[in-house]
Amino acid sequence: MKSFNVLLFDDFETLDAMGPVEIIGHLSDFQLNYYSLTGTKITSKQAFTIETKPLNSLKASDVFLIPGGMGTRKESKNPELISEITRISALSTFVLSVCTGAALLGQTGLLDSLSATTNKKAFDWVVSTNPHVNWQKNARWCVAEKFYTSSGVSAGMDMTLGFVSDQFGLEKAFEIAQGIEYIWNQAPQNDPFSVR
Amino acid sequence: MKSFNVLLFDDFETLDAMGPVEIIGHLSDFQLNYYSLTGTKITSKQAFTIETKPLNSLKASDVFLIPGGMGTRKESKNPELISEITRISALSTFVLSVCTGAALLGQTGLLDSLSATTNKKAFDWVVSTNPHVNWQKNARWCVAEKFYTSSGVSAGMDMTLGFVSDQFGLEKAFEIAQGIEYIWNQAPQNDPFSVR
Repeated sequence: MKSFNVLLFDDFETLDAMGPVEIIGHLSDFQLNYYSLTGTKITSKQAFTIETKPLNSLKASDVFLIPGGMGTRKESKNPELISEITRISALSTFVLSVCTGAALLGQTGLLDSLSATTNKKAFDWVVSTNPHVNWQKNARWCVAEKFYTSSGVSAGMDMTLGFVSDQFGLEKAFEIAQGIEYIWNQAPQNDPFSVR
Repeated sequence: MKSFNVLLFDDFETLDAMGPVEIIGHLSDFQLNYYSLTGTKITSKQAFTIETKPLNSLKASDVFLIPGGMGTRKESKNPELISEITRISALSTFVLSVCTGAALLGQTGLLDSLSATTNKKAFDWVVSTNPHVNWQKNARWCVAEKFYTSSGVSAGMDMTLGFVSDQFGLEKAFEIAQGIEYIWNQAPQNDPFSVR
């Protein structure tokens, strides 16, 4: 079974992580795992506390998910966390970021010169953290090499269904969307919240 | 500040709880709290473990949220849990259920003769648990007296935005949807997954 490894940190935005998790949980191919820098309990912006394993115990990874949220403001300046995100992104087959999680991924340098997107309300801040990324103002999500980056919060669900479609076929993505009664915005270029 | 109290049990479906939580977390009016029957750690169907407080410590409640998921098959036959759901539903100003959470709420008898809806794939099972409810085959969500009941999983987000609209106005609901870049299906009668 493949591993889908979710990064968590205090004040992560709930749906950034839990939207993709909901979708991936409907694939029998993946085991879901939850990590933080030091393996402590983590509290989301929406006030629930969740158990995690330490990132340094992660020695192989198929997919690595980086959520966003207010916590990224602090964590984007945390060299130990960025170092671990860099290491795990390098060894993962695919890396997915949601919302301002792109700011953490951008700090690794791995997105430099690649197309990527992020939350449209926090767009200017994310761009300021790394102007070498080819940031897209009008994209529900972007795919560049092994990196999937989505717009804000809910867009992570559309992107994850896009990832499922790319890896397992369009029918599988629609089957999952149907199962969770989700109205999938399946076109990555259809971004109702784009920056004008 | 008002309280938004989330019921959790093992094998709850992640998005059933976390979709509404994401939306309510954007209102400054509510404190989010997480409960289970005995206040133990709870593991979702999607394999993360979360801390809870015991239901018997809940003596006042503004809004009570009941998610669904595979865990409802077992919990719908748990008299201690149904007794606590009955007590807390009675003292809450509003009660919201998502997906097969309606089967738990239905066991209290409080939905009898009222219109309600649930997951469309598990529709027949939910109806079988209480045929005295006026189950709606074609509804994204239903409102009857103080009870909001939604269709499967993702429909809980549309319903919660509907609840926000009813309580705080349409503009507030749209502001939250915009903030989380969510494409809101705002019509409760628009159910793309209805049972034919």
